[in-house]
Amino acid sequence: MEIERKFLVNELPQNLDSYPKTRIKQWYITIKPAVRLRERDGVYTFTVKSKGHLVRQEFEMELTQEEFANLFTKVSTHAIDKIRYEISLDNGLTAELDVFLGKHKELNLVEVEFETEEAAHAFTPPAWFGEDVTQEAKYKNNNLALPL
Amino acid sequence: MEIERKFLVNELPQNLDSYPKTRIKQWYITIKPAVRLRERDGVYTFTVKSKGHLVRQEFEMELTQEEFANLFTKVSTHAIDKIRYEISLDNGLTAELDVFLGKHKELNLVEVEFETEEAAHAFTPPAWFGEDVTQEAKYKNNNLALPL
Repeated sequence: MEIERKFLVNELPQNLDSYPKTRIKQWYITIKPAVRLRERDGVYTFTVKSKGHLVRQEFEMELTQEEFANLFTKVSTHAIDKIRYEISLDNGLTAELDVFLGKHKELNLVEVEFETEEAAHAFTPPAWFGEDVTQEAKYKNNNLALPL
Repeated sequence: MEIERKFLVNELPQNLDSYPKTRIKQWYITIKPAVRLRERDGVYTFTVKSKGHLVRQEFEMELTQEEFANLFTKVSTHAIDKIRYEISLDNGLTAELDVFLGKHKELNLVEVEFETEEAAHAFTPPAWFGEDVTQEAKYKNNNLALPL
């Protein structure tokens, strides 16, 4: 189970390059349901997410290069391409800031994952966070992915 | 996590039609990894299984008809078509007996699922069970599925 809130970004944090970052590419086999391949620092994963906004069922499995290649033949979308920065917040929380490249170059999104729904509701976003878009389907990565 | 042993069948049980049964059809998007669609009594499911024989990671999610239709466009194999009989054994265990139809018409396989690896190893199969094929890749349904 994944409990997550998602926000637009008012202002990117200072010294962005001082935070740990990775380049992430992901492709969708189907948008609905969200069935996805991801390449991150040479690690390939396969992810399935159920419907939902704040709370979603999620399954993730690491793939060999051969398994990735087999599934890649089923891809229906161009790559989502983004740099993910990991920024520590208070209370042991981490902001995952996604700075998109390519077709969605102007877009930045920040996500925070929580242990419980109570913690998710109680969270007060820092000033650099923008509008809460947790409930907005259009900011889901599967909906941002462009058909081939 | 799924802990399962699989056997050939020496002799089908008497009065087979007295046991609960369902017709199962399943198709593979990829064989490796095993990414599968299933239709069972009008219920559609999507299943991903990791590598492994006795113990495998398994994810299963129910699909709407629309989600099933979207994923069905990605299918690479003909349907596996079988009748599954559920036969109670001792110690609260259940034998799932699959009687295959279509191309694998002569094949019968029986599976038993366990809570723990210890229980799996301790299991003594009834006389109607045949050879233990848990470790034999060729009897996995993904390997039985025929390419389109």
